[in-house]
Amino acid sequence: MTNLTLYYAPGTCAQAVHIALEEAGARYEAVRIDLAAGEQRSTSYLAVNPKGRVPSLVTERGTLTETPALLAYVARCFPQARLAPSDAFGFARMQEFNSYLASTVHVAHAHRPRASRWADEPEAQAAMQRKVPANMTECFEFIEQHWLGDGPWVLGEQYTVADGYLFTIAGWLKSDGVDIARFAQVHAHSQRMRERPAVMAATRG
Amino acid sequence: MTNLTLYYAPGTCAQAVHIALEEAGARYEAVRIDLAAGEQRSTSYLAVNPKGRVPSLVTERGTLTETPALLAYVARCFPQARLAPSDAFGFARMQEFNSYLASTVHVAHAHRPRASRWADEPEAQAAMQRKVPANMTECFEFIEQHWLGDGPWVLGEQYTVADGYLFTIAGWLKSDGVDIARFAQVHAHSQRMRERPAVMAATRG
Repeated sequence: MTNLTLYYAPGTCAQAVHIALEEAGARYEAVRIDLAAGEQRSTSYLAVNPKGRVPSLVTERGTLTETPALLAYVARCFPQARLAPSDAFGFARMQEFNSYLASTVHVAHAHRPRASRWADEPEAQAAMQRKVPANMTECFEFIEQHWLGDGPWVLGEQYTVADGYLFTIAGWLKSDGVDIARFAQVHAHSQRMRERPAVMAATRG
Repeated sequence: MTNLTLYYAPGTCAQAVHIALEEAGARYEAVRIDLAAGEQRSTSYLAVNPKGRVPSLVTERGTLTETPALLAYVARCFPQARLAPSDAFGFARMQEFNSYLASTVHVAHAHRPRASRWADEPEAQAAMQRKVPANMTECFEFIEQHWLGDGPWVLGEQYTVADGYLFTIAGWLKSDGVDIARFAQVHAHSQRMRERPAVMAATRG
């Protein structure tokens, strides 16, 4: 598996895919998109991903987007790295976790930096932003209670692509005004993640 | 594969899983949760799914939640029904579509009935609700432009679990104040879906 190009921006959910590619030992090119300069809305990037978001993964067969889909794709393309459970139930549990991160936790966070997606009025945007710490706290209390319980990783003994995704979104807590130390398991998980060479490589910027 | 129990409520995204189980020819029990009566927050249901949402799929190995995860699980457990592409890229494209529905389109819709999740002030909730028709229109214009192009189904020639998911969310457009007829391909897709026996069986209520 070669000819993979990841379009990413530091600190975004693309980091989870970046970590997965490193863990997989994949050969890939990483292309940094400058969100502050609006490069995600440039004609050349919109030709890659018409949604104007990161991550995008360009493969020999075409471009893929959406973090949970990319994570499962990387795990499947590099089976020797064992980045996903091989049985149907275990794989579904991983997808359940990744889907929760994408459609609930990422969305809870996005109401701070991207409130304008869901209301035009500045007062309404400010009201959404005020609720972000409470919503992120609720999400991470749920994760703390229902995941990470049996082992060092999200799914227990087996490290999977879900771990890089949790680590990435947990990294947003500080900017959302929530102290990660409130969540002992998630906090310890993030510390374990930082020691992995793949994570160091993917978060270099 | 037996001993499957689907907890659902009519009109919710659980319908997509219901359709998938019917298409798969699965043996399953469907248990209706009365959302209007708050049954999703009952002690007995929270023991099934502590998120207090539908769908939940109880299997012999435990409970699974999150629609994209459940759809892929059903497809994998009933391979003879061919409800997902078997190759890595095709499967990832299906997951990309399902993830977009879950984390962008469903979320765009949810700001009308569930605005209180993201802001406490009634004025802010009203501001979110006003923006729902524009956001849903944008999502379905994207789907219309980038999917459904080559064949009768979301992924082209092959009918997959993504079709029941699109059909389910397209069914919310009317209540969101958007005329589905604006989207010719999506509109025709919904009409094709209604003719399938599995869809008729799953939408009986």
